[in-house]
Amino acid sequence: MTSKNEPTSPSERSGHKTGARIKRYFPVLEWGKRYDRTTLTSDLVAAVIVTIMLIPQSLAYALLAGLPPEMGLYASIAPLLAYAIFGTSRALAVGPVAVVSLMTAAAVGNLGLESPAEYAVAAITLAFISGVMLTVLGLLRLGFLANFLSHPVIAGFITASGILIAASQLKHILGIQAEGHTLIHLLGSLSAHLSETNFITVVIGVLSTAFLFWVRKGLKPLLLSAGLAGRSADLLAKAGPVLAVAATTLAVWLFGLDQRGVAIVGEVPTGLPPLTLPSFSPDIWQGLFVSALLISIIGFVESVSVAQTLAAKRRQRIEPDQELIGLGTSNIAASLTGGYPVTGGFARSVVNFDAGAETPAAGAFTAIGILFAALLLTPLLFFLPKATLAATIIVAVLSLVDFSILARAWGYSRVDFAAVAATIVLTLGFGVEVGVSSGVMISIGLFLYKTSRPHVAEVGLVPGTQHFRNIKRHEASTHPEIVTLRIDESLYFANASFLQDLILDRVIRDEAIKHVVLMCSAVNEIDLSALETLEAINTRLKDMGITLHLSEVKGPVMDRLRRSHFLDELTGEVFLAQYDAIQKLSPDAIREVE
Amino acid sequence: MTSKNEPTSPSERSGHKTGARIKRYFPVLEWGKRYDRTTLTSDLVAAVIVTIMLIPQSLAYALLAGLPPEMGLYASIAPLLAYAIFGTSRALAVGPVAVVSLMTAAAVGNLGLESPAEYAVAAITLAFISGVMLTVLGLLRLGFLANFLSHPVIAGFITASGILIAASQLKHILGIQAEGHTLIHLLGSLSAHLSETNFITVVIGVLSTAFLFWVRKGLKPLLLSAGLAGRSADLLAKAGPVLAVAATTLAVWLFGLDQRGVAIVGEVPTGLPPLTLPSFSPDIWQGLFVSALLISIIGFVESVSVAQTLAAKRRQRIEPDQELIGLGTSNIAASLTGGYPVTGGFARSVVNFDAGAETPAAGAFTAIGILFAALLLTPLLFFLPKATLAATIIVAVLSLVDFSILARAWGYSRVDFAAVAATIVLTLGFGVEVGVSSGVMISIGLFLYKTSRPHVAEVGLVPGTQHFRNIKRHEASTHPEIVTLRIDESLYFANASFLQDLILDRVIRDEAIKHVVLMCSAVNEIDLSALETLEAINTRLKDMGITLHLSEVKGPVMDRLRRSHFLDELTGEVFLAQYDAIQKLSPDAIREVE
Repeated sequence: MTSKNEPTSPSERSGHKTGARIKRYFPVLEWGKRYDRTTLTSDLVAAVIVTIMLIPQSLAYALLAGLPPEMGLYASIAPLLAYAIFGTSRALAVGPVAVVSLMTAAAVGNLGLESPAEYAVAAITLAFISGVMLTVLGLLRLGFLANFLSHPVIAGFITASGILIAASQLKHILGIQAEGHTLIHLLGSLSAHLSETNFITVVIGVLSTAFLFWVRKGLKPLLLSAGLAGRSADLLAKAGPVLAVAATTLAVWLFGLDQRGVAIVGEVPTGLPPLTLPSFSPDIWQGLFVSALLISIIGFVESVSVAQTLAAKRRQRIEPDQELIGLGTSNIAASLTGGYPVTGGFARSVVNFDAGAETPAAGAFTAIGILFAALLLTPLLFFLPKATLAATIIVAVLSLVDFSILARAWGYSRVDFAAVAATIVLTLGFGVEVGVSSGVMISIGLFLYKTSRPHVAEVGLVPGTQHFRNIKRHEASTHPEIVTLRIDESLYFANASFLQDLILDRVIRDEAIKHVVLMCSAVNEIDLSALETLEAINTRLKDMGITLHLSEVKGPVMDRLRRSHFLDELTGEVFLAQYDAIQKLSPDAIREVE
Repeated sequence: MTSKNEPTSPSERSGHKTGARIKRYFPVLEWGKRYDRTTLTSDLVAAVIVTIMLIPQSLAYALLAGLPPEMGLYASIAPLLAYAIFGTSRALAVGPVAVVSLMTAAAVGNLGLESPAEYAVAAITLAFISGVMLTVLGLLRLGFLANFLSHPVIAGFITASGILIAASQLKHILGIQAEGHTLIHLLGSLSAHLSETNFITVVIGVLSTAFLFWVRKGLKPLLLSAGLAGRSADLLAKAGPVLAVAATTLAVWLFGLDQRGVAIVGEVPTGLPPLTLPSFSPDIWQGLFVSALLISIIGFVESVSVAQTLAAKRRQRIEPDQELIGLGTSNIAASLTGGYPVTGGFARSVVNFDAGAETPAAGAFTAIGILFAALLLTPLLFFLPKATLAATIIVAVLSLVDFSILARAWGYSRVDFAAVAATIVLTLGFGVEVGVSSGVMISIGLFLYKTSRPHVAEVGLVPGTQHFRNIKRHEASTHPEIVTLRIDESLYFANASFLQDLILDRVIRDEAIKHVVLMCSAVNEIDLSALETLEAINTRLKDMGITLHLSEVKGPVMDRLRRSHFLDELTGEVFLAQYDAIQKLSPDAIREVE
């Protein structure tokens, strides 16, 4: 057994050369120098598989965001290269994702723009603002802000978003017009246009959806029974959407279904991603600012949680603040090359990891794959039915919908349940932005509420011991002139008055009391409000002829109290141990018990 | 020594007849039936003194709120009667107060109304909205919400308000026009009009101010040396403002100073308070809603703190939720009788208390006194110079200005200092509403920030004992394969990730580690987010071949963990005591140490 560890203190770490600092901001320098042929092979294999998965997804999510399909492809090129340079996760696959695409649609929709061109510029601007925010948060090391999004809120939000996304895609499956950013609007709009349903579109949409669900559930067992290895079967099943895209595109082309009312993707420009600039109109920035903040936080939280899960599997670390910079530069890259907001995708990153990606270079190779698609494959997408893309979205997002969080939260704590339920209802009822911001406020509000009424137990001496226990739970003896209250929470402004009310209430209904002892063993901090409340309690008790004492005050709390005048004014004493207090205030009582 | 107390449980208390319930909402029924001649005499004496003090104050604060002086008188009649019925404090003197008057001016000023009549209706409506809010908060027993206003924020806000109020009255002292709700605007506006200064007004203003300061500091010693008792001297000194009012009014009348540019109060209607109704225009309600909320909270907090201080001096209790109802009905009464927002005044209540008020009836008698003033004295106020009223305000509010809170906060904690300083700067720079709302948000933000990075200590065994202490502070021994971390805070969504990062960071830089033990002796609660993070930590450590254990988990926390699947998945064990953990995980180590 060694005596003491040797912790690497921050000061020691910063003692390294500036090289370390540069490497922190450019993780590529770290993994790049150890790059070899084996790693290259692994990364290339993963990149091919992710590329195949990403092509239909990027088209579909652009559609979900209300943008032309090529913007989905563009958002899958430069951002991936930026992440490969600045990101710290070895497996995170960046690009357009469902929830952020939905949030983009909501954000840009709020602006009430007329032309598709303005709409596209707004999406580009949103990516730029969000990119700058993420980068700045990363440079300022403010990644911890994302922690204020509690798990129940995220889970509720993701589930509700999945429902909203699926509902928003029904119009493409039915071949009708519909709009809305809340469930009620969407369903109302759908039912209003239901009579315009296009039968052939429905056939394509329903068949694609059914096929994709089968690929997810039924194909893998089939491949396994055909003798494929588990991992290969898994990965091959991911190519399902590409098959659906190919088959339905071919069908539309062969039978001229676009002439019979089937909405198709149409002309997708061929070529390199364009160089674009965000708008710098103050109106647009003002209109997008809050949305960009929400998108940044949601995107970051989602991305970091995937990255952390995957990194831990290989005993690797990701650096949350550097991740902010990685995602921030990716979004800035998106805004400069005709893309829209991106983040790390869950399913995609797991595929990348399972396919063997070992470094962020796999992402760069994926970007090259998508670039080839943008240069060569776009003419083939002309006859691709929108219903097929909608089907891929629906199948992908329904896996996000998970109401089991409600049951789990209910079983664990009513407060957490309230946060999940409220987030789901508000997101469905008022849209993604209201949903997530209310969720955060509700979580914080409930936390403050809980800490504002801390558990305070009246304690007594357990006979024959020096232990003090809650008199409601244990056989413990008390003295009529002494009340001892154990406070099970740090004291701060929101619970200080509660403590005061409780103490005054307790002493006013019992004229015999001459001493109040506050047992502070669980008090980790006393802020200035609580200090002043303690002073007020002391004065008020003094006015009633009662003495106030403290016991078992922790070292750091005591240090701070010494810096105030409280200890001079305190009518009683500060006892190291509660037992000392009782011994001093009522020696007879203890002898009696013993 | 008795064994166990007999606490009056809430269920027992609610066992009383409905009579108790009615009495709770009508405290007058409680004290009213014990009312006798002695109490009557005490209350009458206090009422006379408070009336004399209140007449100039109510005129002056109406002026501060930008309202005609009679509204100040009206706000000092019906509200006092309502409070006498519904209030629980024996000594609180309700009526127009400085800070709420300033906030009224800011709130109504925001609406940008044109005519004085509209302005008055808006102030009446503000009182109504605030009254309804306070009453509803009281009925819903939400008084604890006021606790989120921390002491440093209140102190900073009151100090900054005092400065703003004093600055806003300078125009009356100088006899010029000026406006603005922030210090910069006010001073800018004053200096722009400085050339229009009226010399005679300045003489009246400066002399009144000097006289009132002298009354405060110099009169009492003089009266004492003349043989008066301390308390009488104190109370007589409170009549100073009435003297100043009488003298300057007489001077204006005798020398016709109003013809020489001295602004006077002018005609004040004589008669009973009018019956008025608030506006029900949605625009006005929308414009005043947030202001009414802020006024309600500030008014309530101020009032309750005075009431509590005075009640404790006589070992009495006030009921904060019933206080909300008392103040709420007072404000509704104000809105129905031509008044504007009121609350309990600090100086006035202390005078009431010192003068011997024993029941809220003293307030009712004061109301009758002011009613007589409104019926009989208003003609005498015609020549009262506004400069005199401004002087009474300035002298009154400068006692609110107290920068010592900055020094105290700095000495005690930097976080509290930041909250005070920000509140003062924001209130002076952006007005009362921005000031107080940012103050609240800053307090909450700083609290969340602190709890989001809890203190976590790596602990080791103190040789020869069963105690575990921070290895950075004590000589304590550890085992290379075991890391024990003591968490000094409840675990919740905002600090769960912090803990995870900390643990992963610790184990990744030390390949020898095989066990992580989390010592939970200071963990009062684990919310669902933290539970899921613990699950993630467990899984990630498992992926690295490390076992996770818990020790010293509190009873209620353990009960909750049992309701989840966490304990089934936990790779390690839950130990009752940290010593058991070390004994089990590394028996040799302990033998070695011992």
